[in-house]
Amino acid sequence: MGELTSAFQVEIQSRRPRVVIVGGGFGGLHAAKALARLPVDVTVVDRRNHHTFQPLLYQVALAVLSPADIAQPIRTILRHQANTQVLMDEVVGINVETRQVSLASGATLPYDYLVLATGATHSYFGRDDWAPLAPGLKSIEDATEIRRRVLLAFELAERQALEHGWHPPLNFVVIGGGPTGVELAGAISDIAKLYMRHDFRHIDPSKARVLLLDAGPRILAAYPPDLSARAETTLARLGVEVHTATHVTGVGPGWVEAGGKRIDSVVTLWAAGVQASPLGKLLGAPLDRRGCVLVDDRLNPPGLPEVFVLGDLAHLDQDGRQVPGVAQPAMQMGDHIAKLLAADLAGQRRPAFRYFDKGDMATIGRMAAVAKVEWPFKAHLSGLPAWLTWISVHIFFLIGFRNRLSVFAAWVWTYFTFTRGARLITGDQRLPGWQDRVNAGPAEEGNAKAVEMK
Amino acid sequence: MGELTSAFQVEIQSRRPRVVIVGGGFGGLHAAKALARLPVDVTVVDRRNHHTFQPLLYQVALAVLSPADIAQPIRTILRHQANTQVLMDEVVGINVETRQVSLASGATLPYDYLVLATGATHSYFGRDDWAPLAPGLKSIEDATEIRRRVLLAFELAERQALEHGWHPPLNFVVIGGGPTGVELAGAISDIAKLYMRHDFRHIDPSKARVLLLDAGPRILAAYPPDLSARAETTLARLGVEVHTATHVTGVGPGWVEAGGKRIDSVVTLWAAGVQASPLGKLLGAPLDRRGCVLVDDRLNPPGLPEVFVLGDLAHLDQDGRQVPGVAQPAMQMGDHIAKLLAADLAGQRRPAFRYFDKGDMATIGRMAAVAKVEWPFKAHLSGLPAWLTWISVHIFFLIGFRNRLSVFAAWVWTYFTFTRGARLITGDQRLPGWQDRVNAGPAEEGNAKAVEMK
Repeated sequence: MGELTSAFQVEIQSRRPRVVIVGGGFGGLHAAKALARLPVDVTVVDRRNHHTFQPLLYQVALAVLSPADIAQPIRTILRHQANTQVLMDEVVGINVETRQVSLASGATLPYDYLVLATGATHSYFGRDDWAPLAPGLKSIEDATEIRRRVLLAFELAERQALEHGWHPPLNFVVIGGGPTGVELAGAISDIAKLYMRHDFRHIDPSKARVLLLDAGPRILAAYPPDLSARAETTLARLGVEVHTATHVTGVGPGWVEAGGKRIDSVVTLWAAGVQASPLGKLLGAPLDRRGCVLVDDRLNPPGLPEVFVLGDLAHLDQDGRQVPGVAQPAMQMGDHIAKLLAADLAGQRRPAFRYFDKGDMATIGRMAAVAKVEWPFKAHLSGLPAWLTWISVHIFFLIGFRNRLSVFAAWVWTYFTFTRGARLITGDQRLPGWQDRVNAGPAEEGNAKAVEMK
Repeated sequence: MGELTSAFQVEIQSRRPRVVIVGGGFGGLHAAKALARLPVDVTVVDRRNHHTFQPLLYQVALAVLSPADIAQPIRTILRHQANTQVLMDEVVGINVETRQVSLASGATLPYDYLVLATGATHSYFGRDDWAPLAPGLKSIEDATEIRRRVLLAFELAERQALEHGWHPPLNFVVIGGGPTGVELAGAISDIAKLYMRHDFRHIDPSKARVLLLDAGPRILAAYPPDLSARAETTLARLGVEVHTATHVTGVGPGWVEAGGKRIDSVVTLWAAGVQASPLGKLLGAPLDRRGCVLVDDRLNPPGLPEVFVLGDLAHLDQDGRQVPGVAQPAMQMGDHIAKLLAADLAGQRRPAFRYFDKGDMATIGRMAAVAKVEWPFKAHLSGLPAWLTWISVHIFFLIGFRNRLSVFAAWVWTYFTFTRGARLITGDQRLPGWQDRVNAGPAEEGNAKAVEMK
């Protein structure tokens, strides 16, 4: 397992090996950085020009941070690394026989080592027609689209109330109770109840309802049950209505069908499922049911010692459990690539990868979070202590001093002044289903009367 | 001129007059703020949710600042002003007989006083088909589109050079030598020559050409000739090729036709002409040739004492010269609205408006600008003194403490570290004409060879 054929070793030792890394996320970037001092030529290929700090995407979606606060050009991050070049292009094919990837631009790129780190994307469980009705949160574009919809909902309600004396109810429905769903639901509740109090004259943003739906028996299923329960209590305190064991059977413009009922929804967000990036399929290697590539503890798919798969795209079992698809393992796997290649270059046996779990955490809203700490001590935290831990860890892991500074400044500003700095609506000014709901008129049940002008 | 009919005065004195302000730019916002303490009910209508600090838009376009640094929700700016409501809607009709505006949503809004401050937009001199090929710079969306194109040009050139060993020349063509054109050309030169030095391996960004074309005899035609000359010298030092007396006769995908020649252009930007917002036409009042509403020194169009037009949308002559369509007069006119209405409410004669010119300035690039100072002393400044003046004035006039802080921090960061914080490419990854130019192949003259990998 993980051993190289001698022919391959002979071939790559005749010149500097070419390492192609596909994907500039946590895994790919850590791999590229770790390879800085090895005698290899590295090419990082990504279809975007920027690395995105995904754990803070929901704060872009809820107008706390600007996109540039959590994204940086990959080539700027790696600018001083002499053995590395960055290519903005999309990999559309992999030939493991001739060892080259083909690119959307039409060109091909030969490799001696291929590192696949293209992550995961939303899964609508075969209902891709739901995607435009319930966007998910994976990219900067996703985040600004969610921001547009959430902010627009309040603007359209205010317009309707000002012009007609009533407005459709402001129900926000988040589908999926994992960390992203919990963070989105908590943050929408925050923005509605705390941050927009003084801004409107004809609607009461604090009357907005936020519903979090999950098909499973509890939210944050990957966390210990006590933390799930604490998260649920905190969400309830924020006014988020948590509905577990609730299957979503339909998503339409302006509504969600769940638990046999149709729920009015002004903005529907999708945080229910992820599937591996389609690049795994191009390898021709065995995949799990979500499309992740099965790898051994040297991060190789079976029979492909020159290919490494890491991060969300990899399915690695350790101690009988699958290593989770979060940032930590991706970074550690990226770092490990350098050790694997160094072993090859030295003609030594490749060291096995082992995920070192330092813990996991999710924010729930202003000054609340849950954290399962594994290192340097073991603890289950919630409330303010968990939130302070979350803040420190995320500032620490942000790439680039400028981003750390600007995110920190934005947080101080946001949490002390109760204003959000990035409340921009750009682009289109329509919401799916809104006009139908307005046309249906005030006779329908559940609509809200305009509040008296303050 | 500017006198009210007695019938009108009697009518509005029977209740709190309703003031509808259309446009949340400098003029509209200053008008709204100035009306805070008058016994009137104010409605600010804007089709966007945010006020944009237009003088710094070019810094969003060139990746120095984030959109949220220079834009703020109008309703947040006015949140504590009890007599004011904000409506995100578009005015599509004005009935000066019944005194109401009709809105894109279908509703109407009655007014006693109407303040029109919808500004100006690009004019392609009847060639609107040039718009997608040569975007102008008026909104946040425009700025991020220009940013996308400029950054993408370097990425596509690097891709082409890496994959094929050559790339089409990186010529950036800015059409129009007014302040916006000068600022864009200087900033593109800066980003190419100073800020991307270490980021690419196969292209030399500093070899990019920046061409500034103007049909007139000199750039910055609204400035004194000595400052035009100094601006031209500074641009030349930055490597910008200034071509005056050069008429653009065609704009196509990947090229500009000017002075009888076709110039290869990877990104073409439009800063040549502005025309008034179409709202002026809806009034039925006399317009000048650019669509500006002719107003008297009480800011009224002839025969419409209850309608005020201000900022770029107004054509006001003072001392035989037209008051310029820049931020200063718009703000002063906005402030003056309160004096006009206060006079009405007190039954007094409306005071005449007089533009107090404090001067004007334009940046040319890193640490260079030209400034015509009129107050508190008279001077023509250029170089670093002008640039420091420019920086101080723009920080001072930015709305909101947070934006001042974040812009100041971004500038310190940018100018000391030679990195730009907002180098994000979002959305589409195509440039007009690029693929044709690449397909034409390296045989064409003017293309560049890939540089040796550093």
